Amino acid sequence: MTTLTNIPFDQLSIHQQAHYSKVVTEQDVQLFASLSGDANPIHLDDSYAQTTQFKQRIAHGMLTGAVISAAIAMKLPGPGTIYLGQSLRFKRPVMLGDSITVTLTVIDKHESKPRVKLQCEVHNQHNQLVADGEAEVLAPTEQQTLTLATLPEVQMT
Amino acid sequence: MTTLTNIPFDQLSIHQQAHYSKVVTEQDVQLFASLSGDANPIHLDDSYAQTTQFKQRIAHGMLTGAVISAAIAMKLPGPGTIYLGQSLRFKRPVMLGDSITVTLTVIDKHESKPRVKLQCEVHNQHNQLVADGEAEVLAPTEQQTLTLATLPEVQMT
Repeated sequence: MTTLTNIPFDQLSIHQQAHYSKVVTEQDVQLFASLSGDANPIHLDDSYAQTTQFKQRIAHGMLTGAVISAAIAMKLPGPGTIYLGQSLRFKRPVMLGDSITVTLTVIDKHESKPRVKLQCEVHNQHNQLVADGEAEVLAPTEQQTLTLATLPEVQMT
Repeated sequence: MTTLTNIPFDQLSIHQQAHYSKVVTEQDVQLFASLSGDANPIHLDDSYAQTTQFKQRIAHGMLTGAVISAAIAMKLPGPGTIYLGQSLRFKRPVMLGDSITVTLTVIDKHESKPRVKLQCEVHNQHNQLVADGEAEVLAPTEQQTLTLATLPEVQMT
């Protein structure tokens, strides 16, 4: 069983960073289409995608948002964080097979409430910025170690 | 085969609206965990979730972001839209089984470029606001009718 320990508010410091990486796979794009309902062929149909400016399929932009949210929930501050808000600017498309890395940086801590602002930058394997923005969260106030749930095995047909 | 027709920039008017609804299912939450890597038990483990302030599992916040992005890509302006940015404020948790409805409203059109701002509001089946924010997009400049891709059948074990 995998456990995960959060970083409570009083242990967070300005400029503190965390990184979270993920390869965006064919399956991720299919699952994102399934759960959101976005069946646009730019994400799912090779022949159509070749006729577009991108010449190939691209991942849904908000899939990058999903990965940012996982970085916050898994790394900084981690379990117990309450997500208040997120801004996102999409800078470049993410292609299937790209490895994206989220860098979170603590940029503001409220004086009394456990409110924290995180700068969020996402780069691809060529070190190109694909998205950036800011997250606002309520950090957990107590340290906590949780047993992670087992992710399902997914098959697609 | 299902086709989808977009609304090009010159046919968009201020105050124009579109709605997009979806029931957030057990499978959606599992798939979101799988594609993002967020395995926090608040989303996946009933026993753990009962010990939290919510007393039950909640959907990942950014799953609502995914549904907003699908509303933009499928409804307003639809296919050919380029997603430039999104702000989100999470107001209430979305529970498994909730039916959420995205309301998109055109609130700004650039004078020369096809840049559009959309207000995004998401309500649950009790008409409670669960999230809001603004999207910035480049609307398609030409009307286009696309054949939608077939969504995969997904099994989980």
